[in-house]
Amino acid sequence: MIIVMKPKTSIETINKLKNKMESLGCQTHEIVGENYSVFGLVGDTSKIDRSQIQANRDVEKVIFVQEPYKKANRIFHPQDTIVKIGDKQIGGSKFSIIAGPCSVESKQQLISIAEEIKESGASFLRGGAFKPRTSPYSFQGMREEGLELLKLAREKTGLPIVTELMSADKIERFVEDVDVIQIGARNMQNFDLLKEVGKTKKPILLKRGMSATIEELLMAAEYIMSEGNEHVILCERGIRTFEKYTRNTLDLSAIPVIKKHSHLPVIVDPSHAAGLWWLVEPLAKAALAVGADGLMVEVHNDPANARCDGQQSITPERFNDLVSKLKKLANIENKEI
Amino acid sequence: MIIVMKPKTSIETINKLKNKMESLGCQTHEIVGENYSVFGLVGDTSKIDRSQIQANRDVEKVIFVQEPYKKANRIFHPQDTIVKIGDKQIGGSKFSIIAGPCSVESKQQLISIAEEIKESGASFLRGGAFKPRTSPYSFQGMREEGLELLKLAREKTGLPIVTELMSADKIERFVEDVDVIQIGARNMQNFDLLKEVGKTKKPILLKRGMSATIEELLMAAEYIMSEGNEHVILCERGIRTFEKYTRNTLDLSAIPVIKKHSHLPVIVDPSHAAGLWWLVEPLAKAALAVGADGLMVEVHNDPANARCDGQQSITPERFNDLVSKLKKLANIENKEI
Amino acid sequence: MIIVMKPKTSIETINKLKNKMESLGCQTHEIVGENYSVFGLVGDTSKIDRSQIQANRDVEKVIFVQEPYKKANRIFHPQDTIVKIGDKQIGGSKFSIIAGPCSVESKQQLISIAEEIKESGASFLRGGAFKPRTSPYSFQGMREEGLELLKLAREKTGLPIVTELMSADKIERFVEDVDVIQIGARNMQNFDLLKEVGKTKKPILLKRGMSATIEELLMAAEYIMSEGNEHVILCERGIRTFEKYTRNTLDLSAIPVIKKHSHLPVIVDPSHAAGLWWLVEPLAKAALAVGADGLMVEVHNDPANARCDGQQSITPERFNDLVSKLKKLANIENKEI
Amino acid sequence: MIIVMKPKTSIETINKLKNKMESLGCQTHEIVGENYSVFGLVGDTSKIDRSQIQANRDVEKVIFVQEPYKKANRIFHPQDTIVKIGDKQIGGSKFSIIAGPCSVESKQQLISIAEEIKESGASFLRGGAFKPRTSPYSFQGMREEGLELLKLAREKTGLPIVTELMSADKIERFVEDVDVIQIGARNMQNFDLLKEVGKTKKPILLKRGMSATIEELLMAAEYIMSEGNEHVILCERGIRTFEKYTRNTLDLSAIPVIKKHSHLPVIVDPSHAAGLWWLVEPLAKAALAVGADGLMVEVHNDPANARCDGQQSITPERFNDLVSKLKKLANIENKEI
Repeated sequence: MIIVMKPKTSIETINKLKNKMESLGCQTHEIVGENYSVFGLVGDTSKIDRSQIQANRDVEKVIFVQEPYKKANRIFHPQDTIVKIGDKQIGGSKFSIIAGPCSVESKQQLISIAEEIKESGASFLRGGAFKPRTSPYSFQGMREEGLELLKLAREKTGLPIVTELMSADKIERFVEDVDVIQIGARNMQNFDLLKEVGKTKKPILLKRGMSATIEELLMAAEYIMSEGNEHVILCERGIRTFEKYTRNTLDLSAIPVIKKHSHLPVIVDPSHAAGLWWLVEPLAKAALAVGADGLMVEVHNDPANARCDGQQSITPERFNDLVSKLKKLANIENKEI
Repeated sequence: MIIVMKPKTSIETINKLKNKMESLGCQTHEIVGENYSVFGLVGDTSKIDRSQIQANRDVEKVIFVQEPYKKANRIFHPQDTIVKIGDKQIGGSKFSIIAGPCSVESKQQLISIAEEIKESGASFLRGGAFKPRTSPYSFQGMREEGLELLKLAREKTGLPIVTELMSADKIERFVEDVDVIQIGARNMQNFDLLKEVGKTKKPILLKRGMSATIEELLMAAEYIMSEGNEHVILCERGIRTFEKYTRNTLDLSAIPVIKKHSHLPVIVDPSHAAGLWWLVEPLAKAALAVGADGLMVEVHNDPANARCDGQQSITPERFNDLVSKLKKLANIENKEI
Repeated sequence: MIIVMKPKTSIETINKLKNKMESLGCQTHEIVGENYSVFGLVGDTSKIDRSQIQANRDVEKVIFVQEPYKKANRIFHPQDTIVKIGDKQIGGSKFSIIAGPCSVESKQQLISIAEEIKESGASFLRGGAFKPRTSPYSFQGMREEGLELLKLAREKTGLPIVTELMSADKIERFVEDVDVIQIGARNMQNFDLLKEVGKTKKPILLKRGMSATIEELLMAAEYIMSEGNEHVILCERGIRTFEKYTRNTLDLSAIPVIKKHSHLPVIVDPSHAAGLWWLVEPLAKAALAVGADGLMVEVHNDPANARCDGQQSITPERFNDLVSKLKKLANIENKEI
Repeated sequence: MIIVMKPKTSIETINKLKNKMESLGCQTHEIVGENYSVFGLVGDTSKIDRSQIQANRDVEKVIFVQEPYKKANRIFHPQDTIVKIGDKQIGGSKFSIIAGPCSVESKQQLISIAEEIKESGASFLRGGAFKPRTSPYSFQGMREEGLELLKLAREKTGLPIVTELMSADKIERFVEDVDVIQIGARNMQNFDLLKEVGKTKKPILLKRGMSATIEELLMAAEYIMSEGNEHVILCERGIRTFEKYTRNTLDLSAIPVIKKHSHLPVIVDPSHAAGLWWLVEPLAKAALAVGADGLMVEVHNDPANARCDGQQSITPERFNDLVSKLKKLANIENKEI
């Protein structure tokens, strides 16, 4: 931690702050420049509160050298984490594909999609039972009934199921029924929910918030991990920018950046990023090429009549075609689908 | 609602979609241009699902003429809403000031701040008991104990209390103890929480999400109002942009825009927007001048030792000075503090 | 300047870099932490190239303590700069209003607007002769003929004229004819143009680029000042964000931030920021309250027939009303209009 | 074009506007809804000025159905444009690689890099002679001398040269000396410069502005094309967002979007987008996979001593390795390098 003092701060004031830091267990190293005095803190800085120092009126700025996340940090855990789900996995040499409809709509719909995506090469079935919708007047999902249909589809196909948890009061049910619990972008900083899923042993698929920095995403993972659950899969799904042609701007640079700083697996959701079905294929290929550990793709047998996100869903035929293209790329990148 | 078809869509396809729309109870009006066919829908469009039409592969784009919010919309409720809290109010001719520390830290701290801000002219006491923090390792608030101290401070000063609710399982306690329930920026699209507070009769202070558009903020208010609770106060607190000098970019244009489209009162939080105590005064004055109904300001008796957000908190002395400046401005703007 | 080395960099490598820095005339101060080695550079760092150090593969990051601008920096020039234009000024105790049409359209239009705004209290006349337009098919301005009309309007009213220079080949003509040369937002980093106007003695009104940080705006001012022209007036005119209701998001926090770090005067353009005429009044009032040195406002006698930006122009009647409201505010803020 | 009138606009007012539109040569089609009146314009709308209609106080909003660009629009030019440069090309079945140092620094540096990149598979040599730098105190390029060295390197290697033009007064020299004229991101809306290069016959490499929408990029291309020069190559190089880990956020979705709406070739510059050398390889591969027509990559033989952008430059060895990986990908995508 490096502390820059305001120009012309008196030596007494600087010494007072230095003494305070030292009394908290750090060593201080001072650098006196022409306009600014700077000092560095070394040793156990864990008792020092960042915002308290920033609040000091004589401090110009505080600079952090060490990342604020620990359990998610590759420095302390150099090997890649592989999250196992039954006989499937996310991370390592696998490129894992999660596919399925935006929302569960009916038994017939879900099972037919599940069978088709399995046939094409998907390893996991996604489908929303509880849906976060911008408007209270839009379809809010089939809820508990949707969970039952997901279980049925798993039974028929063997595909593990991934679905979003929106509030902590459903957590026992999800732990019971679901294979991977998804935390949606809008809840990425719903810290109470993060803590609750951190107390379970379930794999958690944590989506990046629309305006979350990479560091904030890793801090959200840290919330889950600090409660004891280290089975966290990250998901890049586009960030909000000034460009409105696409629903969000897919930040593919985030993939190698996350891989440098964290050991957690990270997948890409091109459907929500783009919001347009015809962008899913090129972005999915780019996600594989950039080094992601997998994809989450919306597939619907009748997009024009989907109850949500039809404009970004691809058909099972296109999905099949996409997977065969991805297999060729995966081959070059030494990944298995 | 206006639907633009893809170039060269066949007449049969267009007619099929028109018939479908008409069967759902709308009239259609077609406009045939050189490259595009367009049609407008009039009448009861409530049964038509926006995303379903967008999902139609022959549709180029869908344009909405009417705002998607109803209860929050000034068109259907031309008079300004005034939210009453005991003998206080937010909205109308009042410019209401909510002040207090970022987090409740001790009885002595809270009561002394409460007395000082009341003396200066604040109408409400704020203070965090449950704190949303980016890091799981930061102080998470005094929680239930904090609520008790807020009640004590209310007893001593008569100031109604405003504090943040982070999860639905505490809602009964908040309804019992608190005067205004705050929904924080990170939970602005925690739709389950919005629905729950919508079922109460308590005034709700709804903060704009960091990357929420004005329309999304009004849709979040709609979630609360559609459950029956129309006592919603909006709060602009800065949006996330590329400019990093300030913690967020305060969007003061949002105030007159919200007032044009909605009847709900709207206040400004300059402390969280700027993240720097010395910006609070100029931004507070600008908020009054731009037409806000009030302010939410962080005040701390010892910012350098505050347990959170000390760098953006002002002292009671500065707060007193600020209020006296605001009173002069309010006088010109025909508002009372 | 503070240099953070990559974790596990060898002592030899660190010493090599330290020696290099010392050979360039700096002293180095090392801070050895658990995971990172850091060192600070003190003394004459002017010969050290920031990007060269960042390019060193063993360097994790480089942190700058001192701002990169010198002539624009308040540290080296504590008094406010007041730019004098004839018997008028921008900066100091004045709140200066520049008003006029988006583009010069005809003699009759320009002179009648000029007379009306002068009567209401404007100190400067603006009007575009050379217009930067997003489309090559839009009206590009009356060009040289427009300049002639501006001169005529100045002759009739005595108001100094402010107009935009788009390319260096017109610079002699502008120096001859114009009182304040405007550099538009799209040219804020047209460095060749900045250097050219830096060689003149004319006051320069430099608008913030749509996606420029405050620091980049001050660096653009530095380009002009480093060539010898210190008569620079800055202008905040909105930045590009995800919020599309307004044309841009007016960043009023930038005003006190600029005033803290620079001695240059700074004005606000609410017309271009908002893009909507009915937002001009509240934003203009907020600009005064936040501490700006003046305003630039688009005024048109017939907005519905204006050749550009009619939707953001106010009529002379509204402008008159606005100025009378601003005068009351200015009175409280100890500013003169 | 679709015009939405304000709620409760009188029939007389609506008719007045309709008549005006019809007198300009359009037909109007009215749609009367409950709260809004809407009308569509069909026929020759070329005489109608968008901003004039928006300026009408009775108009709520104006919606454009047709894109504003014509010559760059794929609707009017369905085949892909291939830009030929000597015996090389950009577009079509080629994946073209432009490589070289950020700035030309010396004869030895430039020629050795040129030889190495040619050997590895680059088709064009880039190198800055005139450099746009944020600080006036940074190295501004070798200027005319740099151009001479580029010519020398072309003579030695046969690689066509690509370099940035910053102001119109150098245009004759560039037409004479250079093979592809680059317009930098900061000058994307320097409309005078766009018009000037539009009058030449040289291929123009137009980089997307840091905060330019895809539509604005295509309108900038339209400026060049409307003057008669249709040899335009677009370049995505990252946009400015809230995420600061990378210098900019590479918007790879823009590639398929541009290809859908325009016939112009589009390449990607991963070096400037990321600002970090270790991100160049994954982003370059993603660019190929997403469908770009080529790359522009910074290569330097001694990045730690580069005079600019060393932190984002890769060495010739890494470049060689990158190209061999790209060749495998290109093979799958039916592209030649």
